[in-house]
Amino acid sequence: MRAVDIIAKKRDGQALTSEEIKFFVNGYAAGEIPDYQASAWCMAVLLKGMTDAEATAYTLHMAHSGDVLDLHHIAPCVVDKHSTGGIGDKTTFVVAPLVACHGLPVGKMSGRGLGFSGGTIDKLESIRGFNVSLTTPEFMDMLAKHGIVVSGQSADLAPADGKFYALRDVTATVESLPLIAASIMSKKIASGADAIVLDVKVGKGAFMHTIEEAEALARLMVKIGQGMGRKVSAILSDMNQPLGDAVGNALEVKEAIATLHNGGPADFREHCLICGGKMLELAGKAANLEEAKAMLAKSLADGQAWQKFVEWITAQGGDLSQLEQPETLPKAPHIETVSSQRGGYIKAMDAAEIGKTVVDLGGGRYKKGAPIDYSVGIVFHAKIGSRLTVGAPLFTVHANNSVKLQDACVRLMDALTWSFDPVAAPPHTLKIINAES
Amino acid sequence: MRAVDIIAKKRDGQALTSEEIKFFVNGYAAGEIPDYQASAWCMAVLLKGMTDAEATAYTLHMAHSGDVLDLHHIAPCVVDKHSTGGIGDKTTFVVAPLVACHGLPVGKMSGRGLGFSGGTIDKLESIRGFNVSLTTPEFMDMLAKHGIVVSGQSADLAPADGKFYALRDVTATVESLPLIAASIMSKKIASGADAIVLDVKVGKGAFMHTIEEAEALARLMVKIGQGMGRKVSAILSDMNQPLGDAVGNALEVKEAIATLHNGGPADFREHCLICGGKMLELAGKAANLEEAKAMLAKSLADGQAWQKFVEWITAQGGDLSQLEQPETLPKAPHIETVSSQRGGYIKAMDAAEIGKTVVDLGGGRYKKGAPIDYSVGIVFHAKIGSRLTVGAPLFTVHANNSVKLQDACVRLMDALTWSFDPVAAPPHTLKIINAES
Repeated sequence: MRAVDIIAKKRDGQALTSEEIKFFVNGYAAGEIPDYQASAWCMAVLLKGMTDAEATAYTLHMAHSGDVLDLHHIAPCVVDKHSTGGIGDKTTFVVAPLVACHGLPVGKMSGRGLGFSGGTIDKLESIRGFNVSLTTPEFMDMLAKHGIVVSGQSADLAPADGKFYALRDVTATVESLPLIAASIMSKKIASGADAIVLDVKVGKGAFMHTIEEAEALARLMVKIGQGMGRKVSAILSDMNQPLGDAVGNALEVKEAIATLHNGGPADFREHCLICGGKMLELAGKAANLEEAKAMLAKSLADGQAWQKFVEWITAQGGDLSQLEQPETLPKAPHIETVSSQRGGYIKAMDAAEIGKTVVDLGGGRYKKGAPIDYSVGIVFHAKIGSRLTVGAPLFTVHANNSVKLQDACVRLMDALTWSFDPVAAPPHTLKIINAES
Repeated sequence: MRAVDIIAKKRDGQALTSEEIKFFVNGYAAGEIPDYQASAWCMAVLLKGMTDAEATAYTLHMAHSGDVLDLHHIAPCVVDKHSTGGIGDKTTFVVAPLVACHGLPVGKMSGRGLGFSGGTIDKLESIRGFNVSLTTPEFMDMLAKHGIVVSGQSADLAPADGKFYALRDVTATVESLPLIAASIMSKKIASGADAIVLDVKVGKGAFMHTIEEAEALARLMVKIGQGMGRKVSAILSDMNQPLGDAVGNALEVKEAIATLHNGGPADFREHCLICGGKMLELAGKAANLEEAKAMLAKSLADGQAWQKFVEWITAQGGDLSQLEQPETLPKAPHIETVSSQRGGYIKAMDAAEIGKTVVDLGGGRYKKGAPIDYSVGIVFHAKIGSRLTVGAPLFTVHANNSVKLQDACVRLMDALTWSFDPVAAPPHTLKIINAES
């Protein structure tokens, strides 16, 4: 078997066998197949597609390219949550401790920034000392002791996916339904979660632009997970504007902290309650979603979620003082608030352009391994449906130099569409997809 | 401008601007754009195509990624010939000295083996001491002194193409019409030839399987060349069976030597006369193709072509004794002749399978930079239309171990199709395409 023949077969639109996929995945993981063959293959997959059977085989071989954790000696049910990536998505920071403080262990592996969307691991690293590189024994130990752990993808778990994930980011091969589904599910399978809630973003600021695409991805992932004996549900949520108000690594950590103090933007808080609620429901900790949401709202109000957050972050080496004094998180030297020069309603926001603006401010990356400036980003003071008067604050840009700051301000103004007539704020949760029985 | 955006634009089927192509070509040549981005881009180009304007821009920027030679101080007209690659194509060995001995300077840069088809540079290297790595001054000096030079692609000339060419070989991105056209023409443009004869192969053993595809490629290349002020013609020639009898590096050198001694297989000799004749005609050295062919046939008969060959090979460091005693060229330890077990006519040969068999014998490569065994290969004693009796020799396999030898014999038997009824030998020259005036 030869890598070049497998690339050619997929290039020609043929379905690969499980054996061929295994050869390619294991060869790439082992370094025998070089990056340049893997990227050509990814482009061929993106343009020619995969059958469900190919996607399932690809997921399996990626999951089995390293250790597959069995966490049942720790708890009968460990839950996980995964977002397909959006602008301003800091959900894990709130949902993980929120669910864990109800005695439901959360063991999660996350990724780095991919295209215009941020990554939880980058956001976590904006906290001084936080260790995202855990070995498998450390991951399991943390989960057993604290009932909560979030690490970068360990080199021992789904190592093939780690390599593919970084490569796709810089070769314009991210936006492939089977590659996205397999990447997500291989990590979930390998990290041993029994129940998984998938947060599939839909809109201009997401990989899936239409609800049809998102639903296809969600159903494929639910199918793959179900085939491997996991409980999986998917939430389709709106990403035509940023989630919450903050976009940028440290700025999002600050917003998550405010939310854990029972504050934070309403849309973000509600999203956390729905994701967390679905996790409780799936694990049998609540009879239904409404009951689960009420349980979680209580934990935000009484400080238990915050306590669990502090326990989690400090257990992984994060600096307590930065949590208690969020103003000591990385701070950009140039900060400017732009005000509205007109009255009216915000009708639309170009979420993708907002994401790209943050990348260009230095808050994301174009090449794998490139450094990130945690301090930069944007905080919005108005979103779709907001009514504004002349002079009302629109957004605040945090930049590391004045040229980038001015450029970002111009781009963000162009990213907003206005209306004289009132505009309804769009619904955030679009659909919930459960496994077919 | 960012490489990943250019990949994405092509992935989405949009036409790239000349500026975008220049950025990508120069970035890759300079090592700023890595192999894995270039291969993803090549796959996107292969699957999404290029407009003629894109292909022309790509050719231009590849040619101008390094020096572009001006040879007019050496001669008013320097000619070149290029084959798109086939099985057993050793034409350059005969045509270059044949044309050069008529006072028409031949300056040529050639490539290495690509997929199942051999490369002139590999074949030349089977001659002890032959130096394929010439600097630009050495190339020009050789051309001025001897009127003939063939080198590997100099690092100074079309360096971008050199990198793309090697990369495409191992990423299943060879078979793209605009990539093939641009690769060929960028080298021709950069190496300064005024007149170029393109030998476009058609059939199972060529990149172009149909005459329609081959004609499309030929017309695109003629168009690109014409746009840059060069005289260009293309010959479409059959590649449904090997050219000549020998396939494999040193074996082909031996066959070329026999042809230069006024012998050799008839189809190969005729092909050399047509290619060389077209070169003389294009450069104005003969009134028409028939007159040119007669001039060349005379040079084969009177030894002038052979003398020029010896002058050329030894000038580039090749060992004279190997030319005079071809049996001292690299020789495989295991040689076996397979005889026919039936009577009848050969109806078809799977030329691609023959090419792949030689690669698997060790005579070609799967990964860029991999070594080649010059000694291995096949000599056919029968071709399409041959009438055979039981026990008549079919082919001789030259291998470096007995297992590979047996494997090759079985594959070659399967690569032949038989007929009880007489079969006509197929025409070799299918069409000649000249520039539109």
